[in-house]
Amino acid sequence: MAKYWFTKARFLNTRPTIAHAIHRTPVLTSRTFDQWIQGNLFFKCENFQKVGAFKMRGAAHAVARLSARDKKRGVATHSSGNFAQALALAARQAGIPAWIVMPEHAPQVKKDAVRDYGGQIVECGPTLSAREEKLQQVVKATGATFIHPFDHQDVILGQGTAAQELIEEVENIDILIAPVGGGGLVSGTAIAAMHLSPHTLVYAAEPQGAADAWQSKKTGRIVPQTHPQTIADGLRTSLGQLTFPIIRDHVQEVLLVSEAEIKHALRHAMERLKIVLEPSAAVAIAAVLRYQPLFQNKRTGIILSGGNISLPLIPQLIE
Amino acid sequence: MAKYWFTKARFLNTRPTIAHAIHRTPVLTSRTFDQWIQGNLFFKCENFQKVGAFKMRGAAHAVARLSARDKKRGVATHSSGNFAQALALAARQAGIPAWIVMPEHAPQVKKDAVRDYGGQIVECGPTLSAREEKLQQVVKATGATFIHPFDHQDVILGQGTAAQELIEEVENIDILIAPVGGGGLVSGTAIAAMHLSPHTLVYAAEPQGAADAWQSKKTGRIVPQTHPQTIADGLRTSLGQLTFPIIRDHVQEVLLVSEAEIKHALRHAMERLKIVLEPSAAVAIAAVLRYQPLFQNKRTGIILSGGNISLPLIPQLIE
Repeated sequence: MAKYWFTKARFLNTRPTIAHAIHRTPVLTSRTFDQWIQGNLFFKCENFQKVGAFKMRGAAHAVARLSARDKKRGVATHSSGNFAQALALAARQAGIPAWIVMPEHAPQVKKDAVRDYGGQIVECGPTLSAREEKLQQVVKATGATFIHPFDHQDVILGQGTAAQELIEEVENIDILIAPVGGGGLVSGTAIAAMHLSPHTLVYAAEPQGAADAWQSKKTGRIVPQTHPQTIADGLRTSLGQLTFPIIRDHVQEVLLVSEAEIKHALRHAMERLKIVLEPSAAVAIAAVLRYQPLFQNKRTGIILSGGNISLPLIPQLIE
Repeated sequence: MAKYWFTKARFLNTRPTIAHAIHRTPVLTSRTFDQWIQGNLFFKCENFQKVGAFKMRGAAHAVARLSARDKKRGVATHSSGNFAQALALAARQAGIPAWIVMPEHAPQVKKDAVRDYGGQIVECGPTLSAREEKLQQVVKATGATFIHPFDHQDVILGQGTAAQELIEEVENIDILIAPVGGGGLVSGTAIAAMHLSPHTLVYAAEPQGAADAWQSKKTGRIVPQTHPQTIADGLRTSLGQLTFPIIRDHVQEVLLVSEAEIKHALRHAMERLKIVLEPSAAVAIAAVLRYQPLFQNKRTGIILSGGNISLPLIPQLIE
């Protein structure tokens, strides 16, 4: 194997770098879930993370790693999801500007959230090319550093710190599972396991209606996501050049779940764990419930990616 | 002051007695809430308690304190709320039977929950007298010990252990606040403060639409709750003979909140803390938001009483 960029030394340097900027989130357990699975589940609650999602870890790391000179010019990204808020807050904490390119038809509540965290919104058209063009304009005009929402080394390393905390807090984790969209979270999770708990298997969980990671792993090349059909709005993206090889080489399997299974899992989690989750986070729980034999008699850590859900939509999103 | 029954020795004996039967629940904080209040709030998450509510503490204590002879005959209560589930589970944990008298028209989901925990449901008519008559029949027929849902010394002492954990975990709590229905939780909270942190002020929070505790404290005698109009379904009961004097003498004030304020608080808590709460728990948050000057520059512990809410009703219950 060629030498990889995600060395142990580099990974171990990550959490101290961002400790001031993030929450150490709690780990919950549930006897009811454990009885269903006939194993032990440990829920790492990134829904309690700043901005309500694990994305804060990677954003904080990318910002912290900038040179003093680059910091002055600020950061930029394109996202209408949790990474937009995360980068805005990470930049504000560091006292630097953040430009967030968002489609003009993005929900008002998402724009408001980014502005609340001090981000400057730059609107673009609805297409991928319009978005990238606008981003390049912003970078050119401001000198800001583009921080990719997931296909970025420091972002991936940052996301891995959730698994690191879980591994440090809970002994003898046999399995780690995380949802996969762009792949930043599950890549970081695989890096954490590889360096800190080599016997631990890492699984990804993905909606059947957005099964590009499953296809990519199966075919050995990046299969782009074209027409995602899932309520898990955080998981509609394609894998990246950095995340794909990690998933190919260091993730055991991509486990697919149906929309009905996601909804069931979301309901069970909110009813039993009494926590608010977004559908993307429920995808990992759905996979554990569907593929129960894999997790029987095992100690499994589930990374609950986030909790940003529109409360009035809850009845439609549970089943 | 006449010697009271809730001595320090008796209270301190409570938590060791129930430690095996309950969860030590986490305490959450929120920078956003702290900014709104201009003070420090510490949320004691009894929604994460077994059966999803603080009631488990008192039920476990009442069961644990029975004589061996009484244990054999089991326990009985009347409740269609969280205490029904709590007593059923506490009895099952102790290996004894529990009879729960519930109105025949009680929601199926509540009956199912009690049965899931091993409780035996005895149905009764919708009136108070029908309920009490049925309970007496059950007690006579089975020899079970009646455990009142709140007006019972061991129950009150058990409920106080939530505040005890909070006081032990968070230094220098200036204020404790809990919702008041029958008064078991806030009485127990006052007992904990009195013995463990005498400088701490204890407030009760109550819906305007069920303001019997407020009236009782004002008039110096128990004013029964007649036609409660509130979404906080756990707070529709009257005070009891044991809880009223404690509230009269050891609770600073009963703070009233409107239905709109309860709904706002519920939304804010679910959006910001990412936890699932029942409306009764949101009443205490609503009081802190409404009477903000009382809590400014103070360190306040809020006992979040429970999280048993019907998820499909959430849109109606937030505002």
